[in-house]
Amino acid sequence: MTASRRILALSGGVGGAKLVLGLAHTMAPEDLTVVANTGDDFRHLGLHISPDIDTVVYTLSGLANPELGWGREGETWSFMAGLRQLGGEDWFNLGDGDLAMHVLRTNRLAEGASLSQVTRDLRRSLGIIVSILPMSDDPVQTVVETPDGPLAFQHYFVREQCAPIVTGFRFEHIEKAHPNPALMDALRDDTTGAVIIAPSNPFVSVDPILHLPGLRQTLDAFAGPILAVSPIVGGKAIKGPAAKMMRELGMPSDAAAVARHYSGLIDGFVIDRVDADQEDEIRKLGMDVMITGTVMRDLDSKIALAQDCLAFAERLAAP
Amino acid sequence: MTASRRILALSGGVGGAKLVLGLAHTMAPEDLTVVANTGDDFRHLGLHISPDIDTVVYTLSGLANPELGWGREGETWSFMAGLRQLGGEDWFNLGDGDLAMHVLRTNRLAEGASLSQVTRDLRRSLGIIVSILPMSDDPVQTVVETPDGPLAFQHYFVREQCAPIVTGFRFEHIEKAHPNPALMDALRDDTTGAVIIAPSNPFVSVDPILHLPGLRQTLDAFAGPILAVSPIVGGKAIKGPAAKMMRELGMPSDAAAVARHYSGLIDGFVIDRVDADQEDEIRKLGMDVMITGTVMRDLDSKIALAQDCLAFAERLAAP
Repeated sequence: MTASRRILALSGGVGGAKLVLGLAHTMAPEDLTVVANTGDDFRHLGLHISPDIDTVVYTLSGLANPELGWGREGETWSFMAGLRQLGGEDWFNLGDGDLAMHVLRTNRLAEGASLSQVTRDLRRSLGIIVSILPMSDDPVQTVVETPDGPLAFQHYFVREQCAPIVTGFRFEHIEKAHPNPALMDALRDDTTGAVIIAPSNPFVSVDPILHLPGLRQTLDAFAGPILAVSPIVGGKAIKGPAAKMMRELGMPSDAAAVARHYSGLIDGFVIDRVDADQEDEIRKLGMDVMITGTVMRDLDSKIALAQDCLAFAERLAAP
Repeated sequence: MTASRRILALSGGVGGAKLVLGLAHTMAPEDLTVVANTGDDFRHLGLHISPDIDTVVYTLSGLANPELGWGREGETWSFMAGLRQLGGEDWFNLGDGDLAMHVLRTNRLAEGASLSQVTRDLRRSLGIIVSILPMSDDPVQTVVETPDGPLAFQHYFVREQCAPIVTGFRFEHIEKAHPNPALMDALRDDTTGAVIIAPSNPFVSVDPILHLPGLRQTLDAFAGPILAVSPIVGGKAIKGPAAKMMRELGMPSDAAAVARHYSGLIDGFVIDRVDADQEDEIRKLGMDVMITGTVMRDLDSKIALAQDCLAFAERLAAP
């Protein structure tokens, strides 16, 4: 792999966006393409909300709110106060500045633009050079199955705060969804050097991308290495319900179980030093392992992990 | 006219809303119905904005911004800042709290509710007892004719800040618009004691209402008195471009010219003391005249003018 090769990163929200920021500081940003999960997208109060795209956009533009893990830093909340006064649904918080994104996106989509076009124009307006591709321009809705019935993802994640027990997942309309053509082109193009699955939730952030019709076959045919970074460190998810989901689904909530989830697809798996004891178990799945620090607390640790991932990809690509 | 009789007020934005607030403090609010101009309504960034309804709603709920004359007091502006960052159209200011109104309205309309239903629910959620009726549930667009061509009202009013010379007005789609049925019912109902045309712009706030198909005939057949309050005091409009429009249309910019505009329709005209010298000229148009203080600087003066209007209506109704 030469330094000028393109990197494709598959990402959900916070964890994925952190690694993407590290990559953007490590390589030429014009050679980096992020494919963002849109299974979390939903319409709320008539607005089209794309949580993972927004987290990537805000993170790459330096506008992200590091405390919340979503939305913008220095946000105001007058819209929510007004909404409550008017008796509107208030379980999903929308910051005032953040609303500009949702209103503009919704309006552009209503005018006939694709989510890809809107995303490109919005990230460019914020000076982001990295390409951000919605996984598909077609609607896909992640549904969380629970003993009390199915829940739309944001109802599970935000309204119910991940409390319900998870028995499975469904990606509605995925059979009719076309993978983003730019993603398919990149996978078939020999200038793309590697695919990196970011440390995002395997079930609700990465699987919607992997389940797009034809994508798995195209990934299997991809010439370069595919690697993933474990979102589970020391048996816990850095953020979000991944570990809780794994327990509820009857798997161990550890890095090796994530590796097993991706086995057959990936060539290498990046785990944290605290999980070094799982190396052998993971290697037995037929993949290489890199052990490094994977907790991204600041920009330096994001860059360090990105450098490790790129070095690992280069090693995996070596003949 | 007995105290229990209903009053119908026809209103545009600021000036009309002030008199309506005075009326709401003077009579039983459940007997007051405000018919709001919707010719200024427009879609902006995909949101349905009803400026005159909102000004009436915010004024009656005590949320209005008295400095701006539109929107909410104590407003924040993060949405506009975000919009500018993203390259969105920023000529029309939308406050963050105010957005809750536009987003909820747009969403309800998209779900199939009528503007009347949405307006009723929104004003009730703010504890407003006064009925607020959009003049029509059908779209009507006020167009301002200028030597350089037609301008949509908000483009004239906000984007161009009323600078273009006005040569006339057009109310697009008005021939297909149905007057609000509740307005027609009230005019045909003998419990309605009087119609008061608030001190709003005659051309762009009141005329759209009066030009609704069938409305003028129904007003002509209305049994009670119809009176109007001059929006022009001492040759000037209290707020807005009414006087400038009158000059550009080749009329004197005075109270008498407004009376002439309404002659044949109204039974009485309320003018300010500073315009007392126009009393005879106005009486010659075939209407009664009340001279009082019409400048509404505070709640007391709003109530005083409302009391004067109700007394005038009672006098006009006396056999």
